[in-house]
Amino acid sequence: MASLFVRIDLASGDHIGPGKVDLLEQISEHGSIAAAGRAMGMSYRRAWELVEELNETFGRPVVQSRTGGKSGGGAELTPLGYLVVGRYRALQKAVDKASQGHLSAIQAELKGRRA
Amino acid sequence: MASLFVRIDLASGDHIGPGKVDLLEQISEHGSIAAAGRAMGMSYRRAWELVEELNETFGRPVVQSRTGGKSGGGAELTPLGYLVVGRYRALQKAVDKASQGHLSAIQAELKGRRA
Repeated sequence: MASLFVRIDLASGDHIGPGKVDLLEQISEHGSIAAAGRAMGMSYRRAWELVEELNETFGRPVVQSRTGGKSGGGAELTPLGYLVVGRYRALQKAVDKASQGHLSAIQAELKGRRA
Repeated sequence: MASLFVRIDLASGDHIGPGKVDLLEQISEHGSIAAAGRAMGMSYRRAWELVEELNETFGRPVVQSRTGGKSGGGAELTPLGYLVVGRYRALQKAVDKASQGHLSAIQAELKGRRA
């Protein structure tokens, strides 16, 4: 099936795309930037860079330290981080729905799909 | 203003994005692949490659030779070429409309946009 790749291009030149949003989701799931990076086959350094880019874009953190608990620290999303993930996913869903008819029409013309 | 970058990722691994669609529109406008490439700051070779990629994706041409006429030849879109441009533009419009609310909500959180 064809799918849409969607990226938000900001006036500042910054971008918010599926890579950064997937990373935030993985941080939320694993409670750690390192573990999130590993789950995505990404170096710790690269995962940090992407989080820092988002922090810079918004001028405040999307991820914060989580102190204490039995895992002894780690990371969690800030309310802003959750907003970014939630809005991006909702945007993606709305976009997928809105594009369906046109995507199917293009797909029907593809090589190998013709009678 | 923030905007959405949208690309169609096909199951074959091929992509249809704004670059190829802009090129088709320029070919339609200028009646020549070379002139279309020039208008986009693209080499003739690169413009040809992109057209060839689209031909390969669909298994038939999106651009055809235009013989005769006072300009003595040139290129024009095939019906398939026009379909791809039209559907992609309509998709883009539908996507922009569907994403507006979520995009505004994310934009309202950006650095420098806060009170």
